[in-house]
Parts: sequence; structure tokens; C-alpha cells
Amino acid sequence: MKVMIIGASGIIGRAVAENLEKDHEIIRVGKSRGDLLVDLTEESSVKALFERSGKVDAIIATMGSVHFGPLAEMTAEQFNQGLQNKLLGQVRLVLIGKEHLNAGGSFTLTTGILTHQPIRTGVNATAVNAALEGFVLAAANELAGLRINAVSPTVVTEALDKYAPFFPGFESASASRVALAYRRSVDGIDNGKVFRVW
Amino acid sequence: MKVMIIGASGIIGRAVAENLEKDHEIIRVGKSRGDLLVDLTEESSVKALFERSGKVDAIIATMGSVHFGPLAEMTAEQFNQGLQNKLLGQVRLVLIGKEHLNAGGSFTLTTGILTHQPIRTGVNATAVNAALEGFVLAAANELAGLRINAVSPTVVTEALDKYAPFFPGFESASASRVALAYRRSVDGIDNGKVFRVW
Ligand SMILES: NC(=O)c1ccc[n+]([C@@H]2O[C@H](COP(=O)([O-])OP(=O)(O)OC[C@H]3O[C@@H](n4cnc5c(N)ncnc54)[C@H](OP(=O)(O)O)[C@@H]3O)[C@@H](O)[C@H]2O)c1
Ligand SMILES: NC(=O)c1ccc[n+]([C@@H]2O[C@H](COP(=O)([O-])OP(=O)(O)OC[C@H]3O[C@@H](n4cnc5c(N)ncnc54)[C@H](OP(=O)(O)O)[C@@H]3O)[C@@H](O)[C@H]2O)c1
Repeated sequence: MKVMIIGASGIIGRAVAENLEKDHEIIRVGKSRGDLLVDLTEESSVKALFERSGKVDAIIATMGSVHFGPLAEMTAEQFNQGLQNKLLGQVRLVLIGKEHLNAGGSFTLTTGILTHQPIRTGVNATAVNAALEGFVLAAANELAGLRINAVSPTVVTEALDKYAPFFPGFESASASRVALAYRRSVDGIDNGKVFRVW
Repeated sequence: MKVMIIGASGIIGRAVAENLEKDHEIIRVGKSRGDLLVDLTEESSVKALFERSGKVDAIIATMGSVHFGPLAEMTAEQFNQGLQNKLLGQVRLVLIGKEHLNAGGSFTLTTGILTHQPIRTGVNATAVNAALEGFVLAAANELAGLRINAVSPTVVTEALDKYAPFFPGFESASASRVALAYRRSVDGIDNGKVFRVW
């Protein structure tokens, strides 16, 4: 299979590429690094990506930033950052990418444990992840002949140097363990599922 | 208690006002009709609302539109409409309104059954409702001394003339039954809950 990974240079994306490249041809995509470049917040950039890549069999997104900060100080504009980047970025990838997936192809998006287990300063993350999981649940019914799932990782062990203070007492998972869930989504039969790695 | 209802002229808002006015002073707010006017999509309009209203004890939102349409034809711009209106509109109300709620006050937002039970053309609605429910779950931990809940109605009986074809086989609930859930949120002790009326 031809598998496109958007966010392939990231902590999770690298592990996913390493797992899947054993059996699949990988197209590594990033914002500033990769076989191809894209900015998922830009409509024209996403269209240009698929013009260059041609049809693929699986599309994986391991990208997306949200606003972290206390609710007490949060503005609607800050809250909108996560909506425009992690949420609408991945949704846009599906809305445009569905025309460039071969029959039987799949999408795998990335959410996170914060959907169900909020942390301090994580209000925007929880809302964005929840929206993506809702999107997957609903879109699964309308993507005739294609599949769509999400992976919801706990905090990744390799990211603990950055995130540990925000996840007190949370068990981490290694990036290679998280990558298994993407493998299940791509090579499995599931549709409309959220694979929790926690 | 002084209870502000944004969307008080709507199908659900009218029923909520009718229920709560037995025991509370109601400030009816709408976009084009009401004691006060506001457009929740505009930062300055929301600030002006609270300058006129002064402090209140409960804030209820029964407003919010999303994009309905088949996923096959949906654009990111259309998907963003629901993010900007129903989702960010209600979030903005909380971010600004929390400074204008008396201690012990509450927010009650409106989501809907589509969070968990998608319908054809409802992808945007499912994602938006899910995001709001995530927001409520997370914000409940960061609104010291205040409470926040959501009501998730099934299709409302009084709206069936408009919505029936989209909800085949769904049981409807009367607006007055839906209003009970807002009463529970305002006069009860719950925090971070989603009251399902279905
Ligand atoms: N790390 C964790 O512990 C953890 C846990 C749960 C969930 N998650 C979620 O997993 C996802 C990836 O996290 P990560 O830690 O692996 O991220 P990361 O290491 O920061 O990598 C992000 C990747 O996304 C790409 N990217 C950034 N902005 C982009 C844009 N606008 N368009 C297209 N690609 C873009 C980056 O490309 P460049 O390198 O070229 O900039 C990079 O490849 C995020 O959604 C995050 O919320 C992470
Ligand atoms: N009806 C149902 O069956 C049903 C079921 C489940 C969930 N819901 C949800 O419940 C909410 C209300 O539904 P509804 O059927 O009662 O709606 P509705 O009858 O259309 O009433 C909408 C209300 O919101 C106000 N409004 C519209 N845009 C606004 C804005 N930008 N800022 C502030 N206020 C605004 C309107 O004011 P004006 O009248 O002045 O324009 C009106 O009072 C929606 O979020 C809907 O998704 C409805």
C-alpha cells in the first residue's frame, strides 16, 4: 500500500512511519520537512499536496497544535487556534483527501487522552480532541467505500521531557506502542473507531 | 436568581424561560429580539451585553447553528461555520461571562443527541456538539466557584415540522420536557455534566 503520513517528522509520526515501512510504501509529509510539504491550515496547500502525490491507499495525520493555558485567561481567539489547526486541519485533510484515496482506503486521525481525561490548561485540547472523535464517528457513515478511525494516545514517553509536568501520575506509552494503533487502523477492518492507547 | 437566557426567543429558549420564570427573574436575550440583544459570534457584542446586564446568577445558551449537508460536498469553510457559531459562540459566552457571574453561579450550554447518534448530513453537528461536551467536561475543573453543564436534547417535538426527515425513527421530546434539564442544571448541584434528554 501507498501510505501518506502528514506529520511524519514528529514524535508520533516517526514511530508510525518506522512501523508501517516494513510492509508499505511511505510518503512522508511535514510542514517544513519530508518527501512532500503541506500546511493543513491552507486549502490550496492541501490541494497542491494531492496533485503532487497522486492517489494513495491510506492517509494518516499525526499533526495538530492546540492552545494550552488557564481558562481564567483564555480568549476566544486563543481557543480558535486549536479549532483552526488540529481540528479543521485534520478535517480539511479528509474533505479534500477523500477524492485522492483509492477504493478501500483509510484515514487515521490523531486525538489524545485529553478527550476524556482533562488536565489543567487543557480545555482547548479536550474540546478539539472531542470534536475530532465526533467527526470520525459521523464521517464513518458518509465515506462510502472508505474507512476512517482515530488514535487517542496517552502522553508519549518520548515527549515527557516537554509534557511531564502537565500529566502528573499519567502512565506514558512509548511512541512505538502508540504506532501499533495506527497499524491496526490501516491494515484492519475497523471504521468509525477511536483506538485508545491508554 | 437572575437568569440570563441567550436564545430566549427560540423553540427551546422559550420553553426554558417559561419553566424558570416561575421562580427566577429572566433576562431574555436574542440576536434580533429580547430584553437585550447579542451576537455571540462577535467579541465586542458579548462584552457590551454584560455591560448592560450587570452581574447575573445563571447564564443559559439555547442558540447555535451548524452546517447541515452531505460530507461528499462539504468544504472546510462550511465546516468552520458550525465551529464559529454554535461552538465558539457558546465558548466565548463562557470565557467572557465568567467575569459577570455571581459566586455559585452556573452556565448551561446546549449540545444535542447528534454528539452520539449521527444522522445523514450531520457531520458538522456531531463534531460541534462533541467539542462543546468536551469543553464542559474540562472547563468544569477550572471555573472555581462556578458550575457548568450542558443539555443534550433529542429532536424537539415542536421542531419536527422542520427536522422530521433528518431524524427517521428518533423519539422526539417536547420543549417543556427538555426545559426540565435546564432547570436541573440551574437549581441543582451538578458540575461538568451533560444532561441527556433522550
Ligand atoms: N506527543 C504526545 O505526547 C501526544 C500525546 C497525545 C496526542 N498527541 C497528538 O499527536 C499529534 C502529534 O504530536 P507529536 O508530539 O508527534 O507532534 P510533533 O513532534 O510536534 O510533530 C508535529 C508534526 O506535524 C507537522 N506539522 C505541524 N504543523 C503542521 C501543519 N500546519 N500542516 C501539516 N503538518 C504540520 C510537523 O511538521 P514539521 O516537522 O515539518 O514542522 C511535524 O511533522 C498532535 O495532534 C498531538 O496533540 C501527542
Ligand atoms: N430544535 C431542536 O430539535 C434541537 C434539538 C437538539 C438540539 N438543538 C440545539 O438547541 C439550540 C437551539 O435550538 P432551537 O431550535 O431552539 O433554535 P431556534 O428556534 O432557531 O432559536 C435560536 C435562538 O438563538 C438566537 N440566536 C441566533 N443566532 C444568534 C447569535 N449569533 N447570537 C446570539 N443569539 C443567537 C435566536 O435569536 P433571534 O430569534 O433574535 O434570531 C433565537 O433566540 C441549537 O444549538 C440547536 O442545535 C435543537
